Amino acid sequence: MTKIVIIGGVAGGASAAARARRLSETAEIIVLERGEHVSFANCGLPYHIGGDIKQREALLLQTPLSFKRRFNVDVRTFHEVVAIDPQARLLTVKMWPSGETYQESYDKLLLSPGAAPVVPPIPGLDNPATFALRNVPDMDRIIAALDSRKPAHATVVGGGFIGLEMVEALHQRGIKVTLLELAAQVMAPVDPEMANILHHELVQQGIDLRLNRGLTAVTQGVSPEADRDATGSCEQGSDNGDLTLQLSSGETLMTDMLILAIGVKPEVRLANAAGLVLGASGGIKVDASMRTSDPHIYAVGDAVETPEFVTGKPGVIPLAGPANRQGRMAADNMLGRDISYTRTQGTAICKVFDLAVASTGLNEKRIKALGLAYEKIYVHPASHASYYPGAHPVSFKLLFDPQNGRILGAQAVGKDGVDKRIDVLAVAMRAGLTVMQLEELELTYAPPFGSARDVINQAGMVAANVINGDEVVCHSEDILALTADQLLLDVRNPGELTSIGQIPGAINIPVDELRQRLSELPTDKEILVTCQVGLRGHVACRMLRNAGFKARNLSGGFKTFQMATARF
Amino acid sequence: MTKIVIIGGVAGGASAAARARRLSETAEIIVLERGEHVSFANCGLPYHIGGDIKQREALLLQTPLSFKRRFNVDVRTFHEVVAIDPQARLLTVKMWPSGETYQESYDKLLLSPGAAPVVPPIPGLDNPATFALRNVPDMDRIIAALDSRKPAHATVVGGGFIGLEMVEALHQRGIKVTLLELAAQVMAPVDPEMANILHHELVQQGIDLRLNRGLTAVTQGVSPEADRDATGSCEQGSDNGDLTLQLSSGETLMTDMLILAIGVKPEVRLANAAGLVLGASGGIKVDASMRTSDPHIYAVGDAVETPEFVTGKPGVIPLAGPANRQGRMAADNMLGRDISYTRTQGTAICKVFDLAVASTGLNEKRIKALGLAYEKIYVHPASHASYYPGAHPVSFKLLFDPQNGRILGAQAVGKDGVDKRIDVLAVAMRAGLTVMQLEELELTYAPPFGSARDVINQAGMVAANVINGDEVVCHSEDILALTADQLLLDVRNPGELTSIGQIPGAINIPVDELRQRLSELPTDKEILVTCQVGLRGHVACRMLRNAGFKARNLSGGFKTFQMATARF
Repeated sequence: MTKIVIIGGVAGGASAAARARRLSETAEIIVLERGEHVSFANCGLPYHIGGDIKQREALLLQTPLSFKRRFNVDVRTFHEVVAIDPQARLLTVKMWPSGETYQESYDKLLLSPGAAPVVPPIPGLDNPATFALRNVPDMDRIIAALDSRKPAHATVVGGGFIGLEMVEALHQRGIKVTLLELAAQVMAPVDPEMANILHHELVQQGIDLRLNRGLTAVTQGVSPEADRDATGSCEQGSDNGDLTLQLSSGETLMTDMLILAIGVKPEVRLANAAGLVLGASGGIKVDASMRTSDPHIYAVGDAVETPEFVTGKPGVIPLAGPANRQGRMAADNMLGRDISYTRTQGTAICKVFDLAVASTGLNEKRIKALGLAYEKIYVHPASHASYYPGAHPVSFKLLFDPQNGRILGAQAVGKDGVDKRIDVLAVAMRAGLTVMQLEELELTYAPPFGSARDVINQAGMVAANVINGDEVVCHSEDILALTADQLLLDVRNPGELTSIGQIPGAINIPVDELRQRLSELPTDKEILVTCQVGLRGHVACRMLRNAGFKARNLSGGFKTFQMATARF
Repeated sequence: MTKIVIIGGVAGGASAAARARRLSETAEIIVLERGEHVSFANCGLPYHIGGDIKQREALLLQTPLSFKRRFNVDVRTFHEVVAIDPQARLLTVKMWPSGETYQESYDKLLLSPGAAPVVPPIPGLDNPATFALRNVPDMDRIIAALDSRKPAHATVVGGGFIGLEMVEALHQRGIKVTLLELAAQVMAPVDPEMANILHHELVQQGIDLRLNRGLTAVTQGVSPEADRDATGSCEQGSDNGDLTLQLSSGETLMTDMLILAIGVKPEVRLANAAGLVLGASGGIKVDASMRTSDPHIYAVGDAVETPEFVTGKPGVIPLAGPANRQGRMAADNMLGRDISYTRTQGTAICKVFDLAVASTGLNEKRIKALGLAYEKIYVHPASHASYYPGAHPVSFKLLFDPQNGRILGAQAVGKDGVDKRIDVLAVAMRAGLTVMQLEELELTYAPPFGSARDVINQAGMVAANVINGDEVVCHSEDILALTADQLLLDVRNPGELTSIGQIPGAINIPVDELRQRLSELPTDKEILVTCQVGLRGHVACRMLRNAGFKARNLSGGFKTFQMATARF
C-alpha cells in the first residue's frame, strides 16, 4: 500500500489527490494544507470582492469532509509542513493554532505549495489598510475593510492579472482607484502597443493610471508633504486618506486602502531546506515526470519551473491549467505510470473592464531578448460578420519565424471573441502548424459567430503573404525612423484622415485612385504604405510592386500606429 | 497577358477575382454574374428578414463599380453564361433583360456557380405565397410578401441551416411558424440525441415542430379536407391561410406562407453540358489545384466535390469558408502557382434561438454507414467557471478511433461558448492531434472565459481514459437493452432522482456512500453506472473496478440519456 502525502490542497494538489484515488483504492492519501481551505477557486476571489460572484460559498469547491466522502482522502487543514527529511522520508508537521508538531512518513511526497505574493521591502507596508490577495482569508479581510472603513480611494500596486482584476473590483464598488505600475505598461505578457489599448480602457473607465511609478514608502495618516504637494496628485486621492504613498517619481499620493499585486514568487522554502535542486528561474527543478531531484518527491504548479514551449528554456509560469494537469500527471507517476509533461505555452487571458486581453507563447519583448529571428503582423478584423449586430474588432498580433513560418506567439485584445482566437492559435502552435497552415483552418462560421475568413485565417493569410514575399511589411518603428530615401503614402480616403487622424508627412492617394495616379509617385524611393488596418495598404502595395515600385505595407495600418505611439 | 473569366461573383468567385488582381496587375479579369449582385452576404439574408440586420445595404459588400475601382475587375451583372466551348475556349453569354448573346474568350475559366435550392416535384408549389431563399432578390420578395400580406402563419419545409434561420426570422416578426422536417431530426450534421436539444428549444420557443413529415401537395385556398381534419393540426395554422398543405403523415395544414429550405444541390448544368467530369456525389470533379477535367477550367465552392477530411472520399460540402479559400487558391493556380487544397472537415455552426449548434468532421450516423471503428463520449461542462455569472453547459460529443485516438468528429450544443469549442477541436483534428493530446491543450482561462480544465480538456481526459482502459463507457442504447447479467446503478443523490428524473429499474447508492456499501452489489453482474453528467459515475466506476467489480460508466450520464430518449 503506497502512502502518498501531498503538501498543499489547492489546484495541483487537489487534482493529484482525486486522481490518485481514482487510480488506486488502496493507496493512503493525505493532504496537508496550512491554510483553512482546500480546492478553493482562487481565480474567483477578485470577482467576489467586486460583487460579480455573489455567494462566497461558490468559491469553496471542496471541503475536507467532501474530499473524505468522495475520495477517501485525509485532508488536514491548518497543518503546515515545516521540514522534510528526504532520507528518512519524514515530514515535520505543525498544527495551527496549537503549534504542536508531529511527524508524518511518506512513500511518495508531492509538493504543491504554490506561489506567494511578492512583498517588496518598502517601509511602512505593515499597516491595517494594506492587503495582498492570495486566498480566502485575504479576500475576507479585504471585504471586511471595505465594509467597515468604506474607503473612498484605493491604490493598487501592480498591473498584472490580479492587479487589474482588483482595479475593476474596487471600481465596481464605487471606489476611486489609482493603479501604480513600475513598468511602462500593464499586463507584462503582451507587448506595449497591445497594452496601450488597455491603458486607454482604464483611463476611459476613470482609473487614475500611473505608469513608470514605483511605490517607495508608505506612512500612516496624511503627511505634511502630501499637503504641500505641488503636482496636484493629492487631488486624485481621498481627503480622508489613511495612508500617504511616496512614489518613485517624487509624487505623493493619499489613499484609504493599498492593495499589493506586484506578482508572485514560487514557494520554495521547504524544498530548498530539504536540499531539493532549484532551477535558475527560482522554481523547484523537476523532470518531465514532475519528479524533483529526490526520486520520492514530486512537485507541481506555481512552485516549479517547466520548459517554455518555444525555446525549451525552464521558467516559472504560474497558471491554473498547467497546475491542474501537472497534479493529475504526478499522481499517475507516483502510482507507477510513466506520463510526461509537455512544455508550457503560457496561454492566459484577463478581463479588463469591457475588454479581454489574451496571449500565448512568446511576446516580442522576450523574442528580442532571446535574439530569435522573427517577424510580426497585426490584423484588426471584426469578431464576427461586421453586418451582424455586436461585432467588435479583435486586435491580433502574430509573431512567427520569417524563414519557416513557425508560430512563436500571439496576442489579442478586444471586446468579443478574444478567448476563442487565442485558443485556436494556441492549439495550432502546440500542434506545430505553421502560419501558412492557419489559412486552411476550418472554423465555425455563421454571421453571429465568425466570418468566412476568420481572424485567424486572415492573420495566417497576411503572415503567409510575408513569407511568400507577396507582402513586405513595415512597422511603426520604421515609420518613425523614415529616411530620405523613403516616402510615406496613406491610401485612405481624405475624410478618414481628418476624422481619425494621420501620420505627419504622409502623402494621400486613396487606393481606388492609385492605379490612375502612379505617375505622381517617385520610382527611386521606397514607398511605405498605410491605410486604416492594413487591408487596403496590401492592395496598394501589390499594385505598386506589380508596377515596379519598391513598397512596404504598414502592418495593421494607422490603427496599429496609433496603438504603438500612444502615451499614457 | 492572361485573360481570366470567372462565372459567378459571390464568395469563391469574388475571392478569386480580388486575389488574381493582387497577383497580377496585367491580367484581364472578367466576372460574369447572372444575378443583380456580386459579393453579397448570402449568410446574412435570414437575419435581415428577421430584423437583426437593419440595413439591407449592409449585405451588399461589393458592387461592380467598387470592384472596378479597387481591383480593375470587369464585373458584368445580369450576364448569364449559357454555354462553354472548352476546345475553342469560348463562352456564350446572354445578357438580361435584353436576351442578347455574345461570345467571350478566355485563357483560364473559373466556375463558381454555387448551389441551387432543391425544389422537390410537389404539385402546387408554383404559387405567390411560396418562396426559397438564395439571393438578395429572393430576400426582397419574402420581405415584400411579409409586409404586404402580413401572414399570421408560415410554414418552413426543411430543418437545415437556412430552414432553422428562417424559422427564427419569421418567429421574430411575430409570425406563428410550423417547421416540417422529413427526417426524424433537424440539423442533419449532428446526431439525433444532440438534435433533440434543438427540438426542445424550438418547442419551448413556440414553434410547431413536425418531424418525420414530408410535404406532398400544396393547394391554394382553404381545402374542404382541411376543415374536416380531425387531427387538430389545422388549429396550428391560420384561419386566413392562403395555402393548404398535404403532409406525408396524412395531416393537412393551412398556412399563409411557405418557405422551401430543403437543401441545395450543386449548379452543374453548364459544367455538364461542357463535358466536364462530374463526381459521384454530383459535384464538379476537381483535383487538388481546383482544376476540372479540362486543364483551362477551374471550379470552386458549392458546385464542386472535395475530399472529406477523415476518409478522403469526395463529397459536396457547401460552406462559405472553403468556397472563399478555394477561390483564392484557384486564382493562384490560374496564374501559375501550385497551391493544393486540403480536405474539407465541414466545420459548421447555426444559431437556433438561444442555442448554438456546431459540428466538425464525421457524425455517428455517417461513421456507422462507413463501417468505421469508433467510440463516443459525452461531457456537459460549464462554458466558463460555474461560479462566475453567465455560465451555461456545453453539451459536447466526441467521436474517435478507439485504437489510436484519432479524432473522427465532434458536435456541441449550448447557449455559450459552442463556437469556441468546435473551433478548438477542429484545429486539433486538422492538425492530427489525438484525443489523448486534448488534455494537454493550453487554453485561455479566467473565470469569465473558461475553466482551468476546459470543455475540450475534459472531453480529452474522458476519451483518453477510455483508450487507456481507465474508463469503460456504456451508452443509452446499452441501458435500453439491459440484460439479466447487468445491473443499473444510479450514484446521484436521492433528491436529484425525484427532481430531475431517473431511469426505471436503477438502484440508487449515492457515490459518497458507495465505498461503504459495496457489499450491497452483486459481484456476478456487470454494473452500468449513471450519474447526472458522467463525472461521479466515473469516480464510482473506478471505485468498483478497483474493488474487483465489472463496471461501465454511462457517458454523459442521465442528461445524455434524456437527450437520447426524448421524443418530439
